[in-house]
Amino acid sequence: MKSYFITLEGPDGSGKSTMTRFLSEYLTQKGYEIVITREPGGTDISEDIRKIILDNKNTNIAYTTEALLYAASRAQHVHEKILPALNEGKIIICDRFVLSSLVYQGIARGLGIEEVKKINDFATQGLEPDLILLFDIDPEVSLRRKTKKGNADRLEKEDISFHKKVYSGYMNIKDMYYEKIKIVDASKDKHEVFNNIKELVDNLIK
Amino acid sequence: MKSYFITLEGPDGSGKSTMTRFLSEYLTQKGYEIVITREPGGTDISEDIRKIILDNKNTNIAYTTEALLYAASRAQHVHEKILPALNEGKIIICDRFVLSSLVYQGIARGLGIEEVKKINDFATQGLEPDLILLFDIDPEVSLRRKTKKGNADRLEKEDISFHKKVYSGYMNIKDMYYEKIKIVDASKDKHEVFNNIKELVDNLIK
Ligand SMILES: Nc1ncnc2c1ncn2[C@@H]1O[C@H](COP(=O)(O)OP(=O)(O)OP(=O)(O)O)[C@@H](O)[C@H]1O
Ligand SMILES: Nc1ncnc2c1ncn2[C@@H]1O[C@H](COP(=O)(O)OP(=O)(O)OP(=O)(O)O)[C@@H](O)[C@H]1O
Ligand SMILES: [Mg+2]
Ligand SMILES: [Mg+2]
Repeated sequence: MKSYFITLEGPDGSGKSTMTRFLSEYLTQKGYEIVITREPGGTDISEDIRKIILDNKNTNIAYTTEALLYAASRAQHVHEKILPALNEGKIIICDRFVLSSLVYQGIARGLGIEEVKKINDFATQGLEPDLILLFDIDPEVSLRRKTKKGNADRLEKEDISFHKKVYSGYMNIKDMYYEKIKIVDASKDKHEVFNNIKELVDNLIK
Repeated sequence: MKSYFITLEGPDGSGKSTMTRFLSEYLTQKGYEIVITREPGGTDISEDIRKIILDNKNTNIAYTTEALLYAASRAQHVHEKILPALNEGKIIICDRFVLSSLVYQGIARGLGIEEVKKINDFATQGLEPDLILLFDIDPEVSLRRKTKKGNADRLEKEDISFHKKVYSGYMNIKDMYYEKIKIVDASKDKHEVFNNIKELVDNLIK
């Protein structure tokens, strides 16, 4: 059975986790074997790496160190979970992947998209998604969705200009993967957004 | 005061640590402020990273993950220790640096020298030593030096063909840094080896 690797990307609150759920139910009902994942992907090594990044005593961590640790965590996730599942003919649905690093480390941290792409190409050894669903939504709108729920964390409370930078970052990297990236209008209601995604995924897996 | 960044590279038992000691005594006597270091460089974050690499429960660590963790550890070492010392006008003497990764991860692990160089260029943000002392010695000879002392660890006990691969790896990357690398004939006696190094270092710092 042919395997597929699908990732969902886009700003905070754009609906990725919601659509990951919808998509996994849909594909399971159609009889596909699927794996839902997100980084650190539940591998022990990736969790250990994540602990270093989040450790409060490590406030002096360099942006370069941080980006390399994210890449290391991804390398293990690819090696231990994604590649084996692809080899078993499954469909992998991954909530955020390389594009998130390009935007958050490359643009928001200022390390450069191309530079961050290099270390991630090393991490993935060139594995690329078959389909990248990029959720397009005005950051003012997506943030309102999240803050309404009253559980905005530190990152989300950063100033709106940061979120605008993330949004335009996503839009700027479309060309790097222009065949794989499909833009989803994420400002529509859940039903419409999901219909759009269903069409794109049906088209991929025929 | 002008700062200098000097690294010592070469196979196991080639004399790097011995010459690091000799060189630091020599430069200290001449009145220079020096910093001796080696990775993980005594930074907390680098030590935490090293623990993941060495952890016995992490036997399924991917070679890519390992190489990215070494690079992350180096990024922090550069950020927290090497760059600040260079900014204070000191001479840094570092026992092994990027070349060791190119050889051990790039060649011995088979990840490719150019590939491993890319992630290390990211880690160092382009910082390169002013002088790389590359210790050239037949692996049969250097291994005998170490095993005579009866404290050969796992890596050192690996088969001689591994050490020959490391040796030829070092010799093959000369061209990547041909202005910076100076070959030291490490098969000579300690006094002669050190005279050679003194000349190269005197010439650098004038
Ligand atoms: N199309 C939609 N219209 C309105 N609200 C939506 C839509 N899609 C998701 N939401 C709601 O917006 C909020 C954020 O959605 P979700 O958690 O799926 O976003 P996310 O992209 O996963 O965010 P994060 O990057 O922070 O994980 C949730 O309350 C969700 O129910
Ligand atoms: N020029 C030399 N001639 C003979 N023996 C030497 C010479 N230089 C060093 N030695 C001895 O060889 C052994 C290994 O030297 P040293 O520990 O300095 O090597 P090294 O390159 O740091 O090795 P490693 O990579 O394993 O740390 C030591 O016992 C040292 O005293
Ligand atoms: Mg989410
Ligand atoms: Mg040594």
